[in-house]
Amino acid sequence: MTENRLTRQVDFLVEIDKLKTVLRRAYIADASRRENSAEHSWHIAMMAMILAEYCHQDVDLFSVIKMLLIHDIVEIDAGDTGIYDHVAALDKNERETLAAERVFSLLPPDQAKELRKIWDEFEQGASSEARFARAMDRLIPLIHNYYTQGKRWKEDGITHAQVLTANQTIREGSQELWEFAFSLIDESVSRGYLLKD
Amino acid sequence: MTENRLTRQVDFLVEIDKLKTVLRRAYIADASRRENSAEHSWHIAMMAMILAEYCHQDVDLFSVIKMLLIHDIVEIDAGDTGIYDHVAALDKNERETLAAERVFSLLPPDQAKELRKIWDEFEQGASSEARFARAMDRLIPLIHNYYTQGKRWKEDGITHAQVLTANQTIREGSQELWEFAFSLIDESVSRGYLLKD
Repeated sequence: MTENRLTRQVDFLVEIDKLKTVLRRAYIADASRRENSAEHSWHIAMMAMILAEYCHQDVDLFSVIKMLLIHDIVEIDAGDTGIYDHVAALDKNERETLAAERVFSLLPPDQAKELRKIWDEFEQGASSEARFARAMDRLIPLIHNYYTQGKRWKEDGITHAQVLTANQTIREGSQELWEFAFSLIDESVSRGYLLKD
Repeated sequence: MTENRLTRQVDFLVEIDKLKTVLRRAYIADASRRENSAEHSWHIAMMAMILAEYCHQDVDLFSVIKMLLIHDIVEIDAGDTGIYDHVAALDKNERETLAAERVFSLLPPDQAKELRKIWDEFEQGASSEARFARAMDRLIPLIHNYYTQGKRWKEDGITHAQVLTANQTIREGSQELWEFAFSLIDESVSRGYLLKD
């Protein structure tokens, strides 16, 4: 019984190793290569730990961090969907829900249910914890773009208006971080990292 | 004041992006490339979340996960030191302590102190939380070696006795996981992944 339970848990942990091979649109900060979703998940968990004080409400930081650690696991099957990819966005939910069903069900049923619940909370974005977690997930590509002189924005022809719209999610998690994001966006336009509309 | 505080926090978050470029000895599970320390940190945080039930004592899982998220940040300056690299081990503590002083001090003083305390707890390995975190850090390369048919062990000429000695850390965190590790090691010898002494 225990052996079977542990075997399932280890199988899951080996399966999610694949997240290290899922490439995001973003570059890492030194612009040498694209970022993968596993290292991204680590980075935003760290970010939540460091920036928790800017959240609108008191949040349970451990819940936020659990959400951030697991939020991209579905990409093992569904791939990463870029923020500005409106075609891929059409069936994103469907692809990711199928992935959640397969990947989490590798775990023993109680843990499968627990992780699915955490993932659903993040996706729905209704709780304070989910709103803050989603703000972290949006803030980091902004910082990466700023520190790589807008490398990805330029390659994809992204405009100021698109970035402003996509990043409203940050405002829902933290007014203070939204003001910071807004100033980064502004600065990016004046430095020529981001296309003016 | 707040702006300066936030600037320091963001500078720290950009600095630790470098952990994505620190390569470990281990390969990722599909053996396609070496693992970096950022994605490794994500993976063992997930592992702690899934395997917490096997800990000897009741542990504060959030403390374990915070330790695992930050435990390798010092490698930005100090590099990764392989478990079996006895030459590099000689000045590992000195290199990593200098790194901790520089990297954590990028943060506002209260957070620098907090992260340093968490890192010290992991390094000292005295608390139940630290012992379990250290067990996670040892178990994962064992699993990676097993799933890559001992690729790294073979390349480095590692023997059964070396692996048994190095992995006693797992026993200190969890008897059940140690038994599992022991069976993986045994199986690795009989499959020819690991040199018999």
